[in-house]
Amino acid sequence: MSPIDDFLQYVDDNQSGFIDRLRDAVAIKSVSGDASLRPDVQNMVDWFDGQLRSYGVQTEQVDLGYQTVDGQQLKLPNAILGRIGDDPNKKTVLVYGHMDVQPAEKSDGWNTDPFTLTIDDQDRMFGRGSTDDKGPICAWVNVLEAHSAKQLDLPVNLRFCFEAMEESGSEGLDDLINKEAAKGEDGYFDNVDCVCISDNYWLNARTPIVTYGLRGVAYFEVTIGGPAQDLHSGMWGNVVHEPMTDLFNIMSQLVRGDGYILVEGVYSGIDDPTPEELALYNALDYTMDDFKSAVGGDIGLSEDVSQLLMGRMRWPSLSLHGIRGASSDETSKTVIPATVTGKFSLRLVPPQTPEDIEKKVKTYIEKVFNTLNTKSTLKEVVMTSGGMPWITDDKNWSYKAADDATMDVYGQNPDHCREGGSIPVTLTFSDALKVPVLLLPVGRGDDGAHSTNEKLDISNYMGGTKLLGTYLYKVAASETGEARRAPNKQKLPARALP
Amino acid sequence: MSPIDDFLQYVDDNQSGFIDRLRDAVAIKSVSGDASLRPDVQNMVDWFDGQLRSYGVQTEQVDLGYQTVDGQQLKLPNAILGRIGDDPNKKTVLVYGHMDVQPAEKSDGWNTDPFTLTIDDQDRMFGRGSTDDKGPICAWVNVLEAHSAKQLDLPVNLRFCFEAMEESGSEGLDDLINKEAAKGEDGYFDNVDCVCISDNYWLNARTPIVTYGLRGVAYFEVTIGGPAQDLHSGMWGNVVHEPMTDLFNIMSQLVRGDGYILVEGVYSGIDDPTPEELALYNALDYTMDDFKSAVGGDIGLSEDVSQLLMGRMRWPSLSLHGIRGASSDETSKTVIPATVTGKFSLRLVPPQTPEDIEKKVKTYIEKVFNTLNTKSTLKEVVMTSGGMPWITDDKNWSYKAADDATMDVYGQNPDHCREGGSIPVTLTFSDALKVPVLLLPVGRGDDGAHSTNEKLDISNYMGGTKLLGTYLYKVAASETGEARRAPNKQKLPARALP
Repeated sequence: MSPIDDFLQYVDDNQSGFIDRLRDAVAIKSVSGDASLRPDVQNMVDWFDGQLRSYGVQTEQVDLGYQTVDGQQLKLPNAILGRIGDDPNKKTVLVYGHMDVQPAEKSDGWNTDPFTLTIDDQDRMFGRGSTDDKGPICAWVNVLEAHSAKQLDLPVNLRFCFEAMEESGSEGLDDLINKEAAKGEDGYFDNVDCVCISDNYWLNARTPIVTYGLRGVAYFEVTIGGPAQDLHSGMWGNVVHEPMTDLFNIMSQLVRGDGYILVEGVYSGIDDPTPEELALYNALDYTMDDFKSAVGGDIGLSEDVSQLLMGRMRWPSLSLHGIRGASSDETSKTVIPATVTGKFSLRLVPPQTPEDIEKKVKTYIEKVFNTLNTKSTLKEVVMTSGGMPWITDDKNWSYKAADDATMDVYGQNPDHCREGGSIPVTLTFSDALKVPVLLLPVGRGDDGAHSTNEKLDISNYMGGTKLLGTYLYKVAASETGEARRAPNKQKLPARALP
Repeated sequence: MSPIDDFLQYVDDNQSGFIDRLRDAVAIKSVSGDASLRPDVQNMVDWFDGQLRSYGVQTEQVDLGYQTVDGQQLKLPNAILGRIGDDPNKKTVLVYGHMDVQPAEKSDGWNTDPFTLTIDDQDRMFGRGSTDDKGPICAWVNVLEAHSAKQLDLPVNLRFCFEAMEESGSEGLDDLINKEAAKGEDGYFDNVDCVCISDNYWLNARTPIVTYGLRGVAYFEVTIGGPAQDLHSGMWGNVVHEPMTDLFNIMSQLVRGDGYILVEGVYSGIDDPTPEELALYNALDYTMDDFKSAVGGDIGLSEDVSQLLMGRMRWPSLSLHGIRGASSDETSKTVIPATVTGKFSLRLVPPQTPEDIEKKVKTYIEKVFNTLNTKSTLKEVVMTSGGMPWITDDKNWSYKAADDATMDVYGQNPDHCREGGSIPVTLTFSDALKVPVLLLPVGRGDDGAHSTNEKLDISNYMGGTKLLGTYLYKVAASETGEARRAPNKQKLPARALP
């Protein structure tokens, strides 16, 4: 039996133990956005640290310092750096994953306790973090367990970078990555040939994909002020200029109902798709039924599924998120809020940059505000966070290895596509290490990451474990991959827009 | 010394005791909107009950039952009914006031503890409820104390109706008033000749007023739905019709920045002011400086102070209050909310009625929604509460008595004006008892009711005590007032709009 067959056999024989691993991970409430659960987040780090060590990974927990929450200093959970294997004749793969999860309460609409992994009669494992991102990390640990138990040599050297703040802005991670990359041979990222991230999902529930592009993001807040304090709408309604009225006027002029962004110049440099690019989207395995079941209704901006995919992957978007400072509860308070802040964000595609979009949004809002003829004050327009879009060459050896692994495990070639979301760490790794970065998902498009009743199918968990392991063997066998220390580590050119 | 001089002398001699009374009242945290403070609200009721009884008022605490808060049954605080005097040769005055207050926390921006009455070097008494409405109720108790201490006969029979839920919708009060009124001779409202309410304020900080009109109110919620659950804006931005975009489009078409309401037909029946009515507004003592200092800036819809006053008192208004279901906190969550509810309210003037406005608002929103060409769903437009506007004849004997009392105490005639706010109990008393209802304020326009650093000037507290007492003497001496049981208790005609 070849080593890879040995590995695959072990996986088939150990499903129940692998599920127990995920059950144990889900049970720890590692909600990074809830300060009161911060000790659980660190417990989760310690737990994964123990898992890695038990299979021979040399690890180090990195203190990321403090964050400021509500004016108080809150200790960040540690990140984990790890290494196993140092064979100069093998390639080196850096694996990224995150151990923290989104908040979840049964009362949010979960059918089962979100922190108790619960398997239904369709072999779906429900639980917070099952697919995002504890399932994929556990799949990596499964791969380590199989090789350790079978005393198989890993086909590559592995490096790990696991964080526990991904759902809360990856506080401290960019610094860690850049510092560690700068250490070169002396750090954990020594001689890394490629990065593999499994923190995304298939487009649908049947066809594997690999992802070669992500939209960037630019989050804005616009603040309008007027009275010195909140005013009684009985005494002052129809007497004063109301900041809420002005804010609604501005925000209703940012984006049309059909998704077209009204900010001037925002589409600059983004060309219409060529017939060749259109063909790429037409070839993706995605139907209107996939779309409708994912969003829960017939609410698409187009009746053409390729147009919907392009709307998600290769065009920018602008979504209105809410208002701070106004009434937002069940009450019928009749106040004229003194100062209100509108919140919205754009998703960006090349060649858009947060810096350029920030200028255009500010200029546009100031122009709209000046048409309002109001005595309210445009207090500020702030971009609170920005992340670059990312797109890479999907023809390199790492993607080829992923294609081959997917064919072996699932019997089909994966679709190659871009994604509408943003994973800023992708670009950080790409810029810091200048090696191929691949997004290779474990879960499906209907897993409901971030939502209630998040799940991971047992078939995807087991298939994902095989896929990630097989990918390592394909990387090792890769004929087109350069050996480490080869002078190939220049920055990859951004993939030109078709 | 005449009885009234005796009364006034006692007031002058007992300022410190009167302030102690208000201090004791302010110290009880009778916040009706905070379920956890409900015991304090009932303590406040017991305290005022004790005050009334100690000066000879026969009282009864009325159980108003329960309210539903967050799905739980919460006991309502009792109301107090009271009576003192039963002389068929005297007129009978019914006094209304409320013992509960708005929420207040020092961290909201108070300079002093809101529940510790604190007097500054300008003789201003700061504390929650100082002017709204504990100060005025205490002033009534001061009047009782003075007559009791000096063994003076009250010039009229007095009846009391004090509630402790005014700041939370006066739950249960309409029922109580209507039931008590229906008891006729057997109830606490027997032979009432007029109602006096002190729960409003001077327009400015120098000129007393009486109030003869209030705007009504109609509170609306409009709900737009789309996806089955909240969606990730990265994956679905520029793919689906977003309920937030549609809601902003609708709400931005309800009212213009200059206050003009865009709902069709909403101004129907409201005529422009005649020169005579305009003269009334021009004659009110109110300056642009009064306005600017009240709202904290130069944010008026007009440079003409009479236009501002008419905007407040005799025209309707529409204010946007907020959105439920969207992001409203400090975070930068990038979600497409599945279902969002916009909240707004109109203030109404005769001949507008909540019922008619409800129809017009629903028709208009449906029409605007149909222009949006969206696949979102207009789930509902609901009027969650409505109150009629109120306006009365300000030439009757009760207003004349208030004029005379004001002249005696403050040396000037009060301005007569309408107010922009809504006190629904006013119309309830008017409809149930069919006698003159007068609003006779104690506090000033700069007292900051409902706001941080609410205050009552000692001069207004002492002047208000004298004013309310003197008003009773003027009612007693009123030549134009009919004796009780006279057949004058038909419903007063609404004051025709000029």
